[in-house]
Parts: sequence; C-alpha cells; structure tokens
Amino acid sequence: MAINTIEMTTVHTIEALQGLIDRNKQEGRTVGFVPTMGFLHEGHLSLVSQARKDNDLVVMSIFVNPAQFGPGEDLEAYPRDAQRDAQLAGSAGVDILFMPTPEEMYPHEGGIKIVPGPQASALCGASRPGHFDGVLKVVLKLVNIVNPDCSYFGMKDAQQLAIIETFVRDFNLRTSIVRVPTVREQDGLAKSSRNVFLTAKEREEAPVIQQALQKGVAVFNDGASSEQIEKIVADFITINNLGVIDYVSLLAYPALTKYDGTSKEIILACAVKFGKTRLIDNIIMSTKDGFHVQNDDEQ
Amino acid sequence: MAINTIEMTTVHTIEALQGLIDRNKQEGRTVGFVPTMGFLHEGHLSLVSQARKDNDLVVMSIFVNPAQFGPGEDLEAYPRDAQRDAQLAGSAGVDILFMPTPEEMYPHEGGIKIVPGPQASALCGASRPGHFDGVLKVVLKLVNIVNPDCSYFGMKDAQQLAIIETFVRDFNLRTSIVRVPTVREQDGLAKSSRNVFLTAKEREEAPVIQQALQKGVAVFNDGASSEQIEKIVADFITINNLGVIDYVSLLAYPALTKYDGTSKEIILACAVKFGKTRLIDNIIMSTKDGFHVQNDDEQ
Repeated sequence: MAINTIEMTTVHTIEALQGLIDRNKQEGRTVGFVPTMGFLHEGHLSLVSQARKDNDLVVMSIFVNPAQFGPGEDLEAYPRDAQRDAQLAGSAGVDILFMPTPEEMYPHEGGIKIVPGPQASALCGASRPGHFDGVLKVVLKLVNIVNPDCSYFGMKDAQQLAIIETFVRDFNLRTSIVRVPTVREQDGLAKSSRNVFLTAKEREEAPVIQQALQKGVAVFNDGASSEQIEKIVADFITINNLGVIDYVSLLAYPALTKYDGTSKEIILACAVKFGKTRLIDNIIMSTKDGFHVQNDDEQ
Repeated sequence: MAINTIEMTTVHTIEALQGLIDRNKQEGRTVGFVPTMGFLHEGHLSLVSQARKDNDLVVMSIFVNPAQFGPGEDLEAYPRDAQRDAQLAGSAGVDILFMPTPEEMYPHEGGIKIVPGPQASALCGASRPGHFDGVLKVVLKLVNIVNPDCSYFGMKDAQQLAIIETFVRDFNLRTSIVRVPTVREQDGLAKSSRNVFLTAKEREEAPVIQQALQKGVAVFNDGASSEQIEKIVADFITINNLGVIDYVSLLAYPALTKYDGTSKEIILACAVKFGKTRLIDNIIMSTKDGFHVQNDDEQ
C-alpha cells in the first residue's frame, strides 16, 4: 500500500477498510476519496486522476446506495459491472477499492435522518423527494469510515455537490470537498452511467443539452433575465427534438436560491428526458473577475 | 499539553482548538471529550474523572446550545457561570476547555437538519419537539471538531444518550460513547444544573423521584406489568407531594420502544415538574445475568 503501488486491494467490509486506511494514515499518508455508484466511465476516472495528483493513497467506494433511490426509481435497473469497474479502477490508480453490500452499510435502522434544507427543493430535488436525504446519509457514513483528507465529486451532479459542500461547512466534517469538472463525449454530451440506455436516435440528439446551456450562457452575458434564459434553453432542447424538459433553472450557487445578481457563483442547470432516460447537465459560472465558466471540459 | 499537565488551556475558536488537538493526536495522545452546557456540578466532574482515567488528553466544551432549546424554553434563563466553571474544570483535570460563542458554532445556516427517528417521540421528546435535532446537530459538529477517541455522556440524560449511541452506530462516527452513571445528592436527588431553581420545600420533596423509581424496579422484579409499574411510580411521586408528572415510562433501551420482554436493557424513566422546574431521572437495568441496575450511584 505504498505510494505508487500498482497493486489495488479490494475490500468488502468496513473493518478491513478502516484497518488498511488507519495504518496508512499512521504512517503519515494523505487519503483522497472517490465515492461512486460504479459502472465507471471517464467522469469517475477523472476524479481518480485528480485524487491521485493530490494524495498519497486513493480510496474508491462502489456502492449503489439504496437510500438515495425513491420508490419507482431505477435502483434495480441501475447498471452494474463489478469486474470491469475493478479493472478500470486499478488501471486509473485506485489503491483501495471498497465494495460493501447494503447489509454491510446498513445493518441497523435507528431511523435517524439527515434532511437537507431549501437547497433540496430546487432542480432535481423537486422530482426526487428524499433523494438527497439518502445522499447525505451515505456521504456522512463513508466520510466517517474512510476519514479522507480530500473527497472528490463531479460537477455534473451539481446539486449533490452544493448540498454536500453545505453539509461539510455547517457540520465541520473533516474532509475537503474537491470539485472536478464534468467529462464529456466528443460531441459534448456529459458522460453518465445512464447514457447506455439511450436509443441511437436519442443518443444522436442528446448533445443538444450542452449546446442549449452554452446558448443560455451567451444570452446571460448579453443581459437576458433568468426567465428569458430558461425559456431559450428549454426551447433549444425541445423544438425539433425528442427531449422533454424536467427543469431548466438559473440559480445562485451553491445556495440554489433565486439569482439576485449578488452571488459569487451561478448555475444554469437542466434535466431532460430522452425516452425513459433522464439526463442532467449544467454550467457553473464564477462571477470573480467577470463571469466565466468553471466546469469547461477539456475538449 | 503533556500528560499530567496541571495547566488548562481555554480556547474560544474552532481553529485554535483543532490546532491544539491535532498536535496532540499527531504525537500519539488519545483524546477524551466531555461536552457540557456548563454550570458544572459533580455529574460533569465525574465525566471528566472517567475521561481522565481513559485518555491522555481531556477536552471539555461548554456551550449552551441554542439549537436544542425550543421556543418558550429556558435558553436565556439557563444558568451560566463561566469563571466558576473554568476553575472547576481545571481542578478536575481538564486539559483544554472549549468555550465557543453561538456565532463561532453557527456562522452559517444552510438548513440541513439531523432528525432522530422514533426514539425521539418517547420520554422527553414528546414535550420537547425539535430538542434532539438540536442535540444531534451540536454533537456531530463537536465530534467532528474535537475528533475524540472517546466521548463521555451522563446516564441522567438517558434519552439523549440512547439517541447519540444510535447515531454513532448508524452513521459510523469515529468516537466511542462512554456511559457515566448519574451522580446524586446525599438524599438521592440526581445532580442537575436546574436544581438551583427549586424552592426549599421543592428541594426537600424532590428526592421522592429516585425513591419512586426504586420502588418501580422492586415491583418490576416482582413481575408487575409496565402499566402497573408506571402507575405505582407516578402515585408515589404525586400523592402528598408538589410534584406534577410529565411522564413515567418503562421502555426497551436504547431503542425506547415498548418493553416486550426481549430487550437486553430496560429503562424506567420519569420527568416531574416541581413548580417551574422540570427534573428528570431514570434507572437503566441490564437483563444480562438477571436484571440489575446499571446506573447505581456510589452512595
């Protein structure tokens, strides 16, 4: 488990994981943590790559967290490929892969819940009641288990990132949250485990989401109102396309409140259904030194 | 800040506290944590005494946590004496005293809440809605800030202890919760910061609470039902006395569900008002090797 190891250790129990990590921390190594739900793609691997640069030891968890799926959501259908994931994680530089069962993670149920505030009512929260309760539950557990110096989250899940940043700040969690830019396909579609569910026709049209958000940023820079921008983005996605809008929102970030011109960061985010597949994407802009996009991919 | 130091350091900021603690932990010292709301009495000092035995470094916090007081409760009237507290803490063997302001503890409000489950509906929870949300909030913050090996809680606040034990278990908090028996006055009244509010007459009668609970345990051992026991205890306290019952309950511990004969621990707990002062007390019995009382004081 030394620095630059090429061997990856896979563990399935909390006890085994903590034993490994504690030993490494005692020897003075820093720990970077990449929590995932598996079915890894380049987005996840870019989290590993950043964690690899910043830390001595990289821990990845793969756990399809039942607590963050609502009734009727795709918990059972969520794509899984443990063998391929382990191969990808090892190649990307993960030192310790933690793959617990639901029973290992949730052996008891005392009924204590972590309930997010108004941030969870915006964007995806509106159509996924309880989703972020489940996210905060597993994040607190994993951070306590792994005890990482830094934890890596992708900017594609911008609402999740905003709520977790707020949780870490308000409850003094002992980990630094590192934002990692969204990784995209050549044509601009954000990488997602759910992209495999798109039909050929849907896949062909899906890049319109990012094009529409870029159009939205352009009209924002021209001085359009939130409502105008949201309408332009929605029209861009739906006219002549299969996409059905769940939401398009321009909000202050990470508070996810109405943008009133004062916040240091803004998000333009949307969720769009192509057939049965719900895709999300966003652009986060910083207002420091004039507006500029934070989560440009490297195309 | 070495072992057996006789100098106590008082800090008011999270940053200063964490700097001190991290240095000690890096040097291999174990940390025991005693969270309090101040106005220290022998009960608190027995927590320190236990922490002193178990750890290299003892950290006490004194913070009257606004989040756990409801509207109309005694937040403003809660007794405070910082100077006397510091003296007592130092004499008892505290190494680091943390006395933050509410602004230091709650500089932001992102609205995330930790909401206990059914445990919070029993006992004191019924008449103090939101109280245990506030307790869990400050406990998570303090545990994250102090990063203690062990945290010490008194058994007088048995419901608080039960909920915190469940929180630590279900969310993998990296601290061990140590139960410390209730300390009592010579006549059996549980030590409490609120005892100073009793009139002479009320003070004279208040020991009836512990006598009644002991009577309840005796009839429990004789095979009485929960309902019978609760009635006997309530009558014992109220007949010919000023005490007004808030509740008397025999429950499984720490689940705080109805006692069905199977749980490993049982609690007989009550809350009684003497005039404006609300007093709580309890007896926790273990069923291991036959029932026996866990929280006997040392009289």
